[in-house]
Amino acid sequence: MRKKIFSWLVASPPRTLAIGFAFIIGLGSFLLHLPVASSSGEETRYIDALFTATSATCVTGLVVVDTGDHYSVFGQIVILTMIQIGGLGFMSMATLFAIFLKRRISLKERLILQEALNQSSIEGIVRLVRRVVLYALTIEAAGALLLTIRFLTNMSPGRAIYYGVFHAVSFFNNAGFDLMGGFSSLTGYADDPWVNLVSMALIVVGGLGFVVLSDLTDLRGGRRLSLHSKVVLTMSGSLILFGAIVVFAFEYANPGTMGPLNTGTKILTAFMQSVSPRTAGVNTLNLTDLRQATQFFIIILMFIGASPGSTGGGIKTTTFAALLGAVWAIIRGREDVVMFRYRLAQERVYKALTLTLLALALVLTATMILSTTEDHHFLMILFEVVSAFGTVGLSLGLTSDLTLFGKIVIMLMMFAGRLGPLTLGYALVPKRDKVLYREAEGKIIIG
Amino acid sequence: MRKKIFSWLVASPPRTLAIGFAFIIGLGSFLLHLPVASSSGEETRYIDALFTATSATCVTGLVVVDTGDHYSVFGQIVILTMIQIGGLGFMSMATLFAIFLKRRISLKERLILQEALNQSSIEGIVRLVRRVVLYALTIEAAGALLLTIRFLTNMSPGRAIYYGVFHAVSFFNNAGFDLMGGFSSLTGYADDPWVNLVSMALIVVGGLGFVVLSDLTDLRGGRRLSLHSKVVLTMSGSLILFGAIVVFAFEYANPGTMGPLNTGTKILTAFMQSVSPRTAGVNTLNLTDLRQATQFFIIILMFIGASPGSTGGGIKTTTFAALLGAVWAIIRGREDVVMFRYRLAQERVYKALTLTLLALALVLTATMILSTTEDHHFLMILFEVVSAFGTVGLSLGLTSDLTLFGKIVIMLMMFAGRLGPLTLGYALVPKRDKVLYREAEGKIIIG
Ligand SMILES: [K+]
Ligand SMILES: [K+]
Repeated sequence: MRKKIFSWLVASPPRTLAIGFAFIIGLGSFLLHLPVASSSGEETRYIDALFTATSATCVTGLVVVDTGDHYSVFGQIVILTMIQIGGLGFMSMATLFAIFLKRRISLKERLILQEALNQSSIEGIVRLVRRVVLYALTIEAAGALLLTIRFLTNMSPGRAIYYGVFHAVSFFNNAGFDLMGGFSSLTGYADDPWVNLVSMALIVVGGLGFVVLSDLTDLRGGRRLSLHSKVVLTMSGSLILFGAIVVFAFEYANPGTMGPLNTGTKILTAFMQSVSPRTAGVNTLNLTDLRQATQFFIIILMFIGASPGSTGGGIKTTTFAALLGAVWAIIRGREDVVMFRYRLAQERVYKALTLTLLALALVLTATMILSTTEDHHFLMILFEVVSAFGTVGLSLGLTSDLTLFGKIVIMLMMFAGRLGPLTLGYALVPKRDKVLYREAEGKIIIG
Repeated sequence: MRKKIFSWLVASPPRTLAIGFAFIIGLGSFLLHLPVASSSGEETRYIDALFTATSATCVTGLVVVDTGDHYSVFGQIVILTMIQIGGLGFMSMATLFAIFLKRRISLKERLILQEALNQSSIEGIVRLVRRVVLYALTIEAAGALLLTIRFLTNMSPGRAIYYGVFHAVSFFNNAGFDLMGGFSSLTGYADDPWVNLVSMALIVVGGLGFVVLSDLTDLRGGRRLSLHSKVVLTMSGSLILFGAIVVFAFEYANPGTMGPLNTGTKILTAFMQSVSPRTAGVNTLNLTDLRQATQFFIIILMFIGASPGSTGGGIKTTTFAALLGAVWAIIRGREDVVMFRYRLAQERVYKALTLTLLALALVLTATMILSTTEDHHFLMILFEVVSAFGTVGLSLGLTSDLTLFGKIVIMLMMFAGRLGPLTLGYALVPKRDKVLYREAEGKIIIG
């Protein structure tokens, strides 16, 4: 019987992942809805507990009630646990998928592999998951230590440690939950380089994906970076820099945001507002006061998101890179997408295109539907939907204003956004009918 | 000397086209700015005359002053002439490009062809242009006759003929200009099946492109439809039907638009509001009263636009079809995009992707910039920009409210939208380094 359940679970990893997430959300929402989970000692409405649990497990960070104000320490620890399980679970599974996909060449080989999975591979999986957990905990511990040192200057030691741990875990998992109260996120720390740099480092590292982290660690052993890692690092770096420049340019003179800040803080906030939408979801500027142009630009960053197999969401940097690669190839008059001297298979580019168009269709459809049920401006609704789909957690204030229907749609978007791109990336592997040799082919993970 | 000018002009057809359009716009703006062109007998501000001339020549239909109210009959005839030259000129040139592209295989062949163009091909061009003009004038005449018959019921004969001719030319060329006054477009005729059906027929036929019209005419001779024509007809039909259903669903109960109408008129307006955004630019419902969801949906239709080598704009139906084809291929687990049993070359799909992303980047950048200079909501500005880029001419009312800077940006968008996709489609032809035989390859025109 146990063997039967196990083979049913490994038969379709995306299904297993979806069931696992649903189970954690169910359990978490039950705990969060208890009176002991709220700071007032009153029961939390179930729909709000469910929303929080979904948001935490999908590491999104959209909140209908403020995490710091509304929940008790017990409630906050439940949330933190869900973030940790959601983030690590997803990261491990995504990494497994990537490895599984790498091997997945023919149907025959796949069948052999699946059989094999029942016997010898379990220890391989255990080893991999252990490594993912080790990496994550190490980085989180370092982040927690650095944040605690800073918080000790304005908090009691116990509180400083608690805040250090909570925010390090939240940021590394790109969860975007915080304890600052009043839906303020990190706006109170806008001019604090220490908090900002540590937070950004946690967010960026968490968003690179385990494969890249593993590659980077192996660099000391003289191994070279894989194509995938090169693409992820280049795209992430470029997006952060480009994003910061755009935010800086649009907000420089805005009296509601950067206007009153000194140049150093302007630069710091520009980088934070560029890093965080992909897809951490903390903010140091008041988002509602941003210019519409900046708000829309942030929507684009949220849509692109982080890298495959990371704690972040979105269509992923590599997907975006494949699209840009096609544009560049056509402009240069080349037939193939070439990155770092490797040709990308047509199938990868088509897949990137497919993922992007399906994501776009989902996001736009949800936005159009919500714009008939929620009495707000289109941009505000689009922002919220993309934030949910990209598991970002930034909001222009719609979350706490959502109708019941709106909450359900946003919850579904968080769930779809967390599992969708990965599942699509996993499911949409075309059968190869022929192998044609041109340049040596390089692989990057899409989705 | 004459020969030198001629070879300079044929050396780069896109440049020739751009110069030609700029020349017509310059001449038209001069005429429109004269006192004789306005109904009040006063001089029109040059920027407004220039805006109108750009809009007419690019067959867009965005207007800063109402065509019926502001301009005299002389002014209106100038506008009509620009529409006719702009529409036919573009249609002929685009058809020439398509034929030119079909033959454009190697650099060597291209050089031979270019040399050839100086001698024997001129008569070929003349013959083709003559055929384009013949088709257009025949269809316009039929449309004008049908519209005049209807207008005779509520106008004097002279006025009915004038209105019949003006609107037939405007609609066939997807120009969207009208003489109804008060920026009302065809809202006064929302429940008139005759006017609506004739207008829609003119718009749709004008938007199919000359190659398809020519193919359809040849059907009687027993020739079969080309792949291009099949794709264009299928996509156009699907988009019109799908668009009508979506508009109908969103607006059915909206008291500001369809609410008070009977079911027949509801269906008629749904079809008109689905046909017109791609890319005629007339409307029978009040656009500002549409739900935000419908307004956004119309933005998508405007972005897709009409078919290659037609009087319409946008990224084109075939471009959109290539993208959908890639999605479908990946979902089905196929390596190649197959349409009507023909495989689309990877290069065509990459090109479709490139065109779409560049158009998207241009439109979104312009919108973000305008949202810092124009004091209006993002959706309204996005609507205006896409309308300009797609040479559609629908507006949520921003046009007459534009700042000087805004007018200049919108004019540039009209110009870029008219020439950009074609020029890109022409310029972005990758060199083939190898020919690989798989399925027989079918060609469709992108851009
Ligand atoms: K997040
Ligand atoms: K138009």
